[in-house]
Amino acid sequence: MIASARSSLQHPAGLGRKTKVMKQRCTIALDAMGGDHGPGVVVPAAVKFAAANPHVDLILVGNEARIEELLKRAPRDRIRIHPASQEVGMDESPSKALRGKKDSSMRVAIDLVKAGEANACVSAGNTGALMATARFVLKTLPSVDRPGIITAVPSMFGHTHMLDLGANVDCTAEHLFQFAVMGSELVSAVDGIDKPRVALLNIGQEEIKGNEQVKQAHELLVNSGLNYIGYIEGDGIYLEDIDLVVTDGFIGNVALKCSEGVAKFIGNSLSAQFKRNWFTKLSGLAALPILKAFKRTMDPRRYNGASLLGLRGIVIKSHGGADQMAFENAIYIAEKEIIANIPQRIGEQVGRHLDPTQYRETA
Amino acid sequence: MIASARSSLQHPAGLGRKTKVMKQRCTIALDAMGGDHGPGVVVPAAVKFAAANPHVDLILVGNEARIEELLKRAPRDRIRIHPASQEVGMDESPSKALRGKKDSSMRVAIDLVKAGEANACVSAGNTGALMATARFVLKTLPSVDRPGIITAVPSMFGHTHMLDLGANVDCTAEHLFQFAVMGSELVSAVDGIDKPRVALLNIGQEEIKGNEQVKQAHELLVNSGLNYIGYIEGDGIYLEDIDLVVTDGFIGNVALKCSEGVAKFIGNSLSAQFKRNWFTKLSGLAALPILKAFKRTMDPRRYNGASLLGLRGIVIKSHGGADQMAFENAIYIAEKEIIANIPQRIGEQVGRHLDPTQYRETA
Repeated sequence: MIASARSSLQHPAGLGRKTKVMKQRCTIALDAMGGDHGPGVVVPAAVKFAAANPHVDLILVGNEARIEELLKRAPRDRIRIHPASQEVGMDESPSKALRGKKDSSMRVAIDLVKAGEANACVSAGNTGALMATARFVLKTLPSVDRPGIITAVPSMFGHTHMLDLGANVDCTAEHLFQFAVMGSELVSAVDGIDKPRVALLNIGQEEIKGNEQVKQAHELLVNSGLNYIGYIEGDGIYLEDIDLVVTDGFIGNVALKCSEGVAKFIGNSLSAQFKRNWFTKLSGLAALPILKAFKRTMDPRRYNGASLLGLRGIVIKSHGGADQMAFENAIYIAEKEIIANIPQRIGEQVGRHLDPTQYRETA
Repeated sequence: MIASARSSLQHPAGLGRKTKVMKQRCTIALDAMGGDHGPGVVVPAAVKFAAANPHVDLILVGNEARIEELLKRAPRDRIRIHPASQEVGMDESPSKALRGKKDSSMRVAIDLVKAGEANACVSAGNTGALMATARFVLKTLPSVDRPGIITAVPSMFGHTHMLDLGANVDCTAEHLFQFAVMGSELVSAVDGIDKPRVALLNIGQEEIKGNEQVKQAHELLVNSGLNYIGYIEGDGIYLEDIDLVVTDGFIGNVALKCSEGVAKFIGNSLSAQFKRNWFTKLSGLAALPILKAFKRTMDPRRYNGASLLGLRGIVIKSHGGADQMAFENAIYIAEKEIIANIPQRIGEQVGRHLDPTQYRETA
């Protein structure tokens, strides 16, 4: 479960699509070649999304012939193809992708955002290459040292958000503080919460615990205007009523992957128990509707789509193994961030928190 | 789930106790006042353990009157009380406990190990205070820079072990390497595996990923005599066939607590689905035996008992909230480490790996 992304609870696939009228027109570029399945997943997801969202134009970026082949029989209103001759491999090094693949579907999709032809882009490609390319092409917002990756995860209280998830392996207290400011603004915009509850991930809730970066970030947060509730431990991500968990990219990535591992392990163990013999199989049959409903609640596809925050443009990273429904969810996240005008809002907030004099009149 | 500990799979409560004859005689000191429940849990656990293990003597350390009160009606073969006038609070700072509580039940239990009156001690008290006191009293083994905390966690392949779990928040590559050596030796002794498969926790399996400490530790491990299989990501803890996961204390602690959180969250969500209405309740009834069997497999109490590795003595940390069965499991781990002669084996291995000249004849 918990692959990636936010706001999906507002967009469970199959719901709420018929009401999409009178919305701000926008354009989203899709890296059609990225991810484990490439155009086989991206193209049908685009077709479905476009049909349900008449205010959105989509640009499929990649190998024209392959995309055309898949589009042939599908309705293609408001979908156009933008050719790109290269692809970034899932294991390719970010620097190699950045230097050697200037006509990759990933790069061109980001270029379209930079050029103003698209309001956002979505890619299921290699995270490192996506971050490096997006940072190089779009640049970071003023006062932002490092962009972060944020996603929503399900929790006892619906869902929470967590950043950073792998973009930054060694973070200073200032980086963690900037993540908190950016994440708080995103959650506020996307979930409509006035003052999101922000927590710092630590190994204990007492003030004496943790490493130096975390302790210093704690001081910065206590003295900030954010709704900072203090430290939480790893279990708090799922069990406490918070809106945003801040941590460095190494720990965030381990926490997220570890959660996926536990969920898979538990799911498999449960299935194995039900398959043990004819009696347990029969009981399993009786419990099937409940187990199905349970699986639906936990479905990682509903959380697919992580945002690259702190850039001068909207870039959404889909899980590499995303299927059609999951990729569609990532497009919904892009659309939501366009409507909420995320980069501008974050730019203002980071400026306000890091250089309050500049924003005194509105602070 | 996954509170703590190893080898519990060899000691599921209620199993294998009748065969305990002809074993090496030994003595284990128990901090009777530690943990959330103190003597109310420790004393009955001791009584049950002693009855099943005629080769083990137990020393209950703490408030004589309270222990006596609880022992009154119980059989007390091979159990004696050692008085201690103080208690270490669960939130007390390690330095305060170390300086101000020289007659605490925790300190006295460790003193008994140092004095050779006990072969090991078990405490459910405050982890930080336990580590600080154990390190001060027992000292680290030669060549060991920092002791680590290791525990077993259930996995798709039975169980695996992970260290460090919170003792060391900032680790160098050398520290991680020492953890690998110590952990590998412990797993080898306790699980009877000749060359345990050791993995390093990272945020990707490619060589370019990770922070500097992890990359350098990788180099040290590649060139070591350990059965090092490379990097794993967070989900690998549960999904890959490995025997030992090495990481720093901050990340290990977050991974463990995060796993507990996900497991509780999934458990609660599943229960909620079964309780929705009369129909789902009925289906739940049918599935009850399977759900119970499933719960038993995942029972965190079967994993209770983390070891402090790298000290000149055996110290086992029980989960603070442990119940009787869980605490008993921690005593079984202590007994197993006594039989395996863990401190001496680790001392030799660390010396061999860090200063091979000294051990040339046996290497």
